[in-house]
Amino acid sequence: MPKIGVLLSGCGVSDGSESQEAVLTLLALDRANAQIVCMAPNVDQAHVINHLTGEVTGEKRNVLVESARIARGEIRDLKDVKAADLDGLIIPGGYGAAKNLSDFAFKGPDAVVNPEVERLLREMVAANKPVGAICIAPATLTKALADKKPEVTIGTDKDTAAAIEAMGGQHKVCSVDQIHLDAGNKIVSTPAYMLGPGIKDVAEGIGKLVEKVVALAK
Amino acid sequence: MPKIGVLLSGCGVSDGSESQEAVLTLLALDRANAQIVCMAPNVDQAHVINHLTGEVTGEKRNVLVESARIARGEIRDLKDVKAADLDGLIIPGGYGAAKNLSDFAFKGPDAVVNPEVERLLREMVAANKPVGAICIAPATLTKALADKKPEVTIGTDKDTAAAIEAMGGQHKVCSVDQIHLDAGNKIVSTPAYMLGPGIKDVAEGIGKLVEKVVALAK
Repeated sequence: MPKIGVLLSGCGVSDGSESQEAVLTLLALDRANAQIVCMAPNVDQAHVINHLTGEVTGEKRNVLVESARIARGEIRDLKDVKAADLDGLIIPGGYGAAKNLSDFAFKGPDAVVNPEVERLLREMVAANKPVGAICIAPATLTKALADKKPEVTIGTDKDTAAAIEAMGGQHKVCSVDQIHLDAGNKIVSTPAYMLGPGIKDVAEGIGKLVEKVVALAK
Repeated sequence: MPKIGVLLSGCGVSDGSESQEAVLTLLALDRANAQIVCMAPNVDQAHVINHLTGEVTGEKRNVLVESARIARGEIRDLKDVKAADLDGLIIPGGYGAAKNLSDFAFKGPDAVVNPEVERLLREMVAANKPVGAICIAPATLTKALADKKPEVTIGTDKDTAAAIEAMGGQHKVCSVDQIHLDAGNKIVSTPAYMLGPGIKDVAEGIGKLVEKVVALAK
């Protein structure tokens, strides 16, 4: 029973983990009989967005506390999780993956990755354990692992693809129902809601990503 | 293409819609080629729970605004939705369904149902259109439709079952991977996280509930 970490970044597409992508990841992992280890950094969100209006509110919310909404309270502080505790790791998308796990959404290629996120990603790759990155999460992953020249997909968005290449990554075009595998680094990615159009399409790619991460974790 | 409403009650198991149940409902509806109409009441949550500690916080959050996190912003104010706009309606669980759609979680059989929730439920049943209720949502539905003596399941919990009978409903024991159908009222229910144990189990019952609601909506 492989232990697969799920690194969350809040709860809600505009300022946290994309709830649908996160839940689809949990569903596919449970169906693959993986043991799920949810985690998130114990830091304030970059900001809070009203998901009805799209406006920034003045609220403060904590990434770990909000991520616990998706994980039903079963979640660990990222700082307490080491690669030795895991057989694989998956990062769902949503803007939180590029606002709270790094500041890529604000600074593009000049992004700074959260130190605990960078630590765990570098530990995983050093241990030759697989990492899956969904939607916009490959951008943060690329920044953290730039020296490994990771091959990733965020779908077809030219600006984001160019930013990934500027950070030292290699971008590959991919459709929503498929994955891209960087076999050397054991990095799997899928575009999900970078492409959409709907939850059933996104579920196809995420299902394949989870299958591949679990297979590589064995 | 049947139009199926999804009535949300916030975002997070302890004070809103159970995110996993809500997303599994959306997934099954999209796979059934239904047109999805998310909605929620535009009212404050009963309270906000820190999902990491289980404690009530002093925050104020709005049910419609938080539900928009699950719906990716594509959501309507419940007051603007009529049964004539829908072919069927589904209410995911989570404590929000018994704290924000009614106050059943606080008052048991003496619960008062949110007037817009009661209006839409009564319109649906009067129009002979199917309604699905997941997890604890059947308690709120029973209170709103007590005169119809609805047959529902919340699984096996004896106290909640007794409260449902006290409100005029008829409780039926049911396992997490099954549904109960009240054929006369076209009400479908499934226990989901009232029983658990995990997301893949909950997905079985919710998948069958969505299938039945869509079938009855045609």
